[in-house]
Amino acid sequence: MKILVLNCRVNSVEFEVFDMPKEEKLCLGVVDKIGLETAQVTYKCPGMKEPLQLIQPVLDHQRAVESVLKIVSDDKNGVAKSPNEIYGVGHRVVHGGERYFDSVLINNEVKKEIYQNFELAPLHNPYNFKGIEAIEKLLPGKPQVAVFDTSYHHTLSEVAYRYPIPERLYSQYRIRKYGFHGISHRYVAEHTSALLKKPLNKTNLISIHLGQGSSMCAIKNGISIDTTMGFTPLEGLMMTTRSGNVSPGIVFFLQKSGWSLNEVESCLNRESGVFGISGISDEMKDVVEEMKSGNKKAKLSVEMFVYRIQEYLGAYYIRLKNVDAISFTGGIGENSDIIRKMTCDKLDFIGIKLDDKKNKKAIGTEADISATGSKTKVLVIPRNEKLLIVRDVYKIVKK
Amino acid sequence: MKILVLNCRVNSVEFEVFDMPKEEKLCLGVVDKIGLETAQVTYKCPGMKEPLQLIQPVLDHQRAVESVLKIVSDDKNGVAKSPNEIYGVGHRVVHGGERYFDSVLINNEVKKEIYQNFELAPLHNPYNFKGIEAIEKLLPGKPQVAVFDTSYHHTLSEVAYRYPIPERLYSQYRIRKYGFHGISHRYVAEHTSALLKKPLNKTNLISIHLGQGSSMCAIKNGISIDTTMGFTPLEGLMMTTRSGNVSPGIVFFLQKSGWSLNEVESCLNRESGVFGISGISDEMKDVVEEMKSGNKKAKLSVEMFVYRIQEYLGAYYIRLKNVDAISFTGGIGENSDIIRKMTCDKLDFIGIKLDDKKNKKAIGTEADISATGSKTKVLVIPRNEKLLIVRDVYKIVKK
Repeated sequence: MKILVLNCRVNSVEFEVFDMPKEEKLCLGVVDKIGLETAQVTYKCPGMKEPLQLIQPVLDHQRAVESVLKIVSDDKNGVAKSPNEIYGVGHRVVHGGERYFDSVLINNEVKKEIYQNFELAPLHNPYNFKGIEAIEKLLPGKPQVAVFDTSYHHTLSEVAYRYPIPERLYSQYRIRKYGFHGISHRYVAEHTSALLKKPLNKTNLISIHLGQGSSMCAIKNGISIDTTMGFTPLEGLMMTTRSGNVSPGIVFFLQKSGWSLNEVESCLNRESGVFGISGISDEMKDVVEEMKSGNKKAKLSVEMFVYRIQEYLGAYYIRLKNVDAISFTGGIGENSDIIRKMTCDKLDFIGIKLDDKKNKKAIGTEADISATGSKTKVLVIPRNEKLLIVRDVYKIVKK
Repeated sequence: MKILVLNCRVNSVEFEVFDMPKEEKLCLGVVDKIGLETAQVTYKCPGMKEPLQLIQPVLDHQRAVESVLKIVSDDKNGVAKSPNEIYGVGHRVVHGGERYFDSVLINNEVKKEIYQNFELAPLHNPYNFKGIEAIEKLLPGKPQVAVFDTSYHHTLSEVAYRYPIPERLYSQYRIRKYGFHGISHRYVAEHTSALLKKPLNKTNLISIHLGQGSSMCAIKNGISIDTTMGFTPLEGLMMTTRSGNVSPGIVFFLQKSGWSLNEVESCLNRESGVFGISGISDEMKDVVEEMKSGNKKAKLSVEMFVYRIQEYLGAYYIRLKNVDAISFTGGIGENSDIIRKMTCDKLDFIGIKLDDKKNKKAIGTEADISATGSKTKVLVIPRNEKLLIVRDVYKIVKK
């Protein structure tokens, strides 16, 4: 059974096709620069030496999905004889609001709810929605499943998810901590429990997802009890261009100094974080390289990045008390041995100890990088959200 | 040598007169409701049964300081024959910016600096400044000393005091973490080291100041290395009416929903925190009482308050590694045994254990409330910032 997984974003669509239940990845790719005459389709199957790259006009999301269906059913390079061979489609949907605690078959009611959450995730939900409508038109009748990035965090207690603001802001505007990266943290939790050979419902861990967006999750008995992102994905850790937590006083001050609301918002989302401090790049690996060659701003930037991870590490350690593992994932978490080393530095007093050699070797691969005798295991788990999405789709559509 | 200590606020002036170097408190009082025809002067000396209360018009801060000088030199109840017997005056000044690391004799340059920090502490510095100018006029030539609420935190590392925002916001607008309650945290640090009979420069502690404003401070070898308030006193812990940390995304969202900047700012400063969640009161003791009688919102509010203290407790524990003591101060910290008990709940796994009986007894008094064998001492230290101010004044003016 062939299942297509889509992650529709502002101006790109990522896709993968799996053969289920074998969990075999048949192909993957991305349509970039949607809206331009020079959009780019990249496509790769396991057998191909080089990925295929096409430059072509892709003016909107429907046309992007069209070109996805076209290339996956291409005579020469495709993995299906026709688009109709796709049995079902899974969508990463960023915001499920307070209603969806689990993945769900998309119908009109679900669509309405995703639509109603546009205002909570204006940079994400509208594009996820466009992807769903495109499939409706292009492959009418095919089952579609929404896998929400928020739903794993529905287990947060009210104490953790409410903000210390007047109650009416919660009841009227739904302002609360939702948390994001839920698909990733859930994958990490399940995979960590498997690696530890411990039942998920007895596994405590701190999941550290470090990528362009970064967040951490405190997981108790397999369940998310707190996470660093909140009402929006701007909150929590310092990220590559996002500030993470900063005093709302800064927002007030800048506006009083003549900045517009949009300028402040854009500054905190796009010009801050590692890039804002280093002035170098929004790629952590570039900044780490600069740090190695003695650049002071790069060093400050990396140290600030790690400082904030440690802040939550402490907070979540107090919360969980027994931590079976801390697990790194995401582009930076999987690939930067130096960030992992700095994060775990001098934490053996709470039972976290890295093995330097193992850590250095674990670049983009699954690994246990803890030193012998480290009470808490330190793991590297490459992200694989699409696998989790396709599993959910299969579970729902095979019924 | 008689020294007057003033804390000039938006619409009140607190005062105390000490005899130095004996550190004997001769009198204390407050002028409230400045600006009104019905302002109120409260005054008390150790010998008096009841505090003296006068209702009289006090239209501005200069007149408030005038009435302070009048009452402390009053024939019947005064502690000085004439205002001229006051040898020097100490002022609590909230914002010393990046320049003042210590208390300082006030001259024109210092005044200019305090003035330049108006924009960083618009609700505090202008009133501190008015107090200084009033004394200049009323007691010309008397030495005045500024004791800054920020200066104790000048030891924060750049990693701790910088925000993950573009560098120009720091260089151009001086946006950084300053921290507040420095006089209180410094007093707590000094007093904790004395109680532990350990040299200050070898004492590690977490100072927890809980009052109308609340903040925590990580103190390593006697020195502040991190604190929860930042660029403004709105940041960090949940407070009685202030939100503390909330996602800047909430500010953007509310403004886009039609709220003005001032409405959002006022909401987060005056209608949030314990009051915002409980809907009951901005007095913690009222909310705790309601919680005891089963009010769910009161319970949520108190639990959220404690949750955020524990978050930083974990973060600072990781930072300090060896914590000699955690010390509670401030109106809530000194008086609420229940908040202290909830804060320390289930933390014996990191060496923090309360003695329930000692904790219940310690209401507004200095006490060691740790259980026998608690690795980290838990202390209650009533706030006494004015003593620290007068010590600084004496040290400077006696030269």
